[in-house]
Amino acid sequence: MPRRSNSGKTGAMTDVSTPPNPAPEPPNVDPDLLDDLVDAVDERDTRWLARTLQRMHPADAADLLEALPFDAFSEAVELLGGELPSDILIELRDSYREEAVDVLPDTAVASALDELDSDDATVILEDLEDERRERILEDLEPFDRAQLERGLAYEEESAGRLMQTEFVAVPEYWTVGHAIDHARELGEELPEVFYEIYVIDPAYRLQGIVQLATLMRTPRDVQLSDIMTDPLSDIRTDMDQEEVAFQFQKYSLASAPVKDAAGRLVGMITVDDMVDVIQEEAEEDLFSLLNVSSADGADSVVDTVRARAPWLAVNLVTAFIASGIISLFEGTLNQVVQLAILMPVVAALGGNAGSQGLVVAVRAIAERQLEGDAVRRAILREALSGIVNGLLFAVGVGLVALVWFHDVKLSVVLGTAMLATFLWAAFSGILVPLGLKKLGADPAVASSVFVLTLTDVMAFFSFLGLATLVLL
Amino acid sequence: MPRRSNSGKTGAMTDVSTPPNPAPEPPNVDPDLLDDLVDAVDERDTRWLARTLQRMHPADAADLLEALPFDAFSEAVELLGGELPSDILIELRDSYREEAVDVLPDTAVASALDELDSDDATVILEDLEDERRERILEDLEPFDRAQLERGLAYEEESAGRLMQTEFVAVPEYWTVGHAIDHARELGEELPEVFYEIYVIDPAYRLQGIVQLATLMRTPRDVQLSDIMTDPLSDIRTDMDQEEVAFQFQKYSLASAPVKDAAGRLVGMITVDDMVDVIQEEAEEDLFSLLNVSSADGADSVVDTVRARAPWLAVNLVTAFIASGIISLFEGTLNQVVQLAILMPVVAALGGNAGSQGLVVAVRAIAERQLEGDAVRRAILREALSGIVNGLLFAVGVGLVALVWFHDVKLSVVLGTAMLATFLWAAFSGILVPLGLKKLGADPAVASSVFVLTLTDVMAFFSFLGLATLVLL
Repeated sequence: MPRRSNSGKTGAMTDVSTPPNPAPEPPNVDPDLLDDLVDAVDERDTRWLARTLQRMHPADAADLLEALPFDAFSEAVELLGGELPSDILIELRDSYREEAVDVLPDTAVASALDELDSDDATVILEDLEDERRERILEDLEPFDRAQLERGLAYEEESAGRLMQTEFVAVPEYWTVGHAIDHARELGEELPEVFYEIYVIDPAYRLQGIVQLATLMRTPRDVQLSDIMTDPLSDIRTDMDQEEVAFQFQKYSLASAPVKDAAGRLVGMITVDDMVDVIQEEAEEDLFSLLNVSSADGADSVVDTVRARAPWLAVNLVTAFIASGIISLFEGTLNQVVQLAILMPVVAALGGNAGSQGLVVAVRAIAERQLEGDAVRRAILREALSGIVNGLLFAVGVGLVALVWFHDVKLSVVLGTAMLATFLWAAFSGILVPLGLKKLGADPAVASSVFVLTLTDVMAFFSFLGLATLVLL
Repeated sequence: MPRRSNSGKTGAMTDVSTPPNPAPEPPNVDPDLLDDLVDAVDERDTRWLARTLQRMHPADAADLLEALPFDAFSEAVELLGGELPSDILIELRDSYREEAVDVLPDTAVASALDELDSDDATVILEDLEDERRERILEDLEPFDRAQLERGLAYEEESAGRLMQTEFVAVPEYWTVGHAIDHARELGEELPEVFYEIYVIDPAYRLQGIVQLATLMRTPRDVQLSDIMTDPLSDIRTDMDQEEVAFQFQKYSLASAPVKDAAGRLVGMITVDDMVDVIQEEAEEDLFSLLNVSSADGADSVVDTVRARAPWLAVNLVTAFIASGIISLFEGTLNQVVQLAILMPVVAALGGNAGSQGLVVAVRAIAERQLEGDAVRRAILREALSGIVNGLLFAVGVGLVALVWFHDVKLSVVLGTAMLATFLWAAFSGILVPLGLKKLGADPAVASSVFVLTLTDVMAFFSFLGLATLVLL
């Protein structure tokens, strides 16, 4: 029950701080263009398809293709085959990209792997079933193949998976002039985008970083070692993406070098990859608190059921625990039916009070704001606001009940139970996540089952228990 | 009740996909250094303070200061006064930055405004009360003052507020060589960091963009107009930050030019500012669904109570609506007390089923994934998985109830109510947010009050209603 009401109000509350939905949104795709596309697919006009898509920005082309009915999308990809630009393929959302990779012939996939930066190529490889992956990898240049296999060897969601192996590294005795001439020689061989060049020693150990902006404003004859800065980040291939994202955010990085276990420079991560990670990580915690896995949102019913049923199952158990508490007071309920009518109110408000504190605590922990003195302050704050809100709503519900049932004793029981539940909720809302973190568990994942079970038990037990003592 | 259990399970579910909390986290601050800092503040050793902080990266220095007890923090800032580097000031979290600005003398604030990029300076200005702001602005150079006042004139959360007015713009007839020489002349006058230069016509209208990487790999004598690319983004000063963030994410931008209403180039937004916006926007929706305003998490009890009480108040109302529904069946409850014990189960599971769909729908809408054909697919998916889970748990709760109360009729009633509630929840979970979006309302804000009230009403009404028909 809890979530129902408040969430709604939350909205009302945040309206001020929240920007209104960006309405009118610029339509993602031009409807006329979409119609032409549909026709082209029907008429199997591959040339028009290829031409049109190549003329657009890959991200826009991807949006256009995703606007097609799913089957028409597959048909379009099948028609295009090798002519589907790899940079469009990589811009497609997961479900579409996977479908596209399924439909494309091996040769097309292989050439895409060849054209893409290593981090994007790895994404495609992940979509393939093992033996097809093997087959395709075998057709690649031994070097590229080795590189891609190394990429796949890194753990998912590790820096090694996120990084691209294309970057610019130069020796420290070079001057600005050297570096620029070198870049001009390489020309198109250089990575498409990069924001800094890395200064290395003969053993490929990172000595420093030179921002392109710095390189630009420095005279040709200056040595790179004189203008290079120490790297702010310290990212190794096995580092978890959440930690990488944290460093990008903290130091406002546009890109960062990645070192292997031996401290050698092996890759570069760019901010555009981190932006998505930062969003995912921000959502993951809150999704957990909202009973949704970040895996959810898939198109297939099976996936959806599989993703949600398990939590509903746990809810089944915990809901019956609550029922168990209620059943302890069956006798009381038999004599005072009003209790059955009022008990959801205590549980609802208590649950909300607890989860409000919990959400704030979980995010604060994730953003590393709950450390040192902040912890003491947070606990104090939650306790005090728990008391204040508790008193406020103890009186509130008490009055409503009084008006409704004209029963002073009942109202006092309700109010007292309310206050007790609020205090309990306030403490568990902050202490449970902090405790779980101390134990090394993920607070986002484990907290709310504790907090909300605790508050429900407290709500029913205090309300019905007090009622048994006072009203019978 | 709903949120309790599932969230917990969610965790379990996502454990696979979710990276474990980055444990062991690198401690944000070195404890010994913190002790030294505390001593230095006690001994009022300003020189040590200034030296130490200046030697650190601003972000690290900010973390260190924030690790102090709040009063010690204020004391430290007071001691430092003008010697607190402005780039540390801007790295402090809101509550700390505001405190610092309060404590600092006007002269210190003024010089900070002078040193900072315009977008950061605006942040500081926002912290000041009006007449102090006036006083400080008057001490600034007329030009800087005018610039800052223009910045403040833009709406909050608009591109104008986010942009910095420091950027590099050159005429299109220039060559690569020109641009580089020009940059070398300006040297330190150039913005600290920039990733691209803007090519403009005499009327300051943007003609194209040249990535620094492109500039580097191109021979000196090539004209900029030959290597410049069309801007991918189209950002005007009045554009909402959510739309700006969307463009940064879509086109993987590191920075983007900002135009005024007349189409003149007036500023530049860098990705490090957008990263925070993207995180906020991702959190805002989910916070709304979790009854927490993004404003929450403040240190003061008053703020916290003010932030949360209103939603609890609405919850009070809606909880009593639910009670109202229950009270319609007072007679039935009086005769079959088991109903009071079981009704929370229906509400809990139904509420969860509804909110699961709702969360997915709200995020999909925010990320513009629910457009065109995707809408039909999503509705179908929710409906079908609602039926499947509904049947699953109708049987589930039915069996549990049968084992518990050995009453077939009661179990059938419970199961049927369960199924009805699941279907109802599935549809409202997807149709309510879509409908609200059509009406131009923010689905994140308004949906859950509807969805969860609807499911609760349905749960209690169907369960107790059926019971009245069948059991009496």
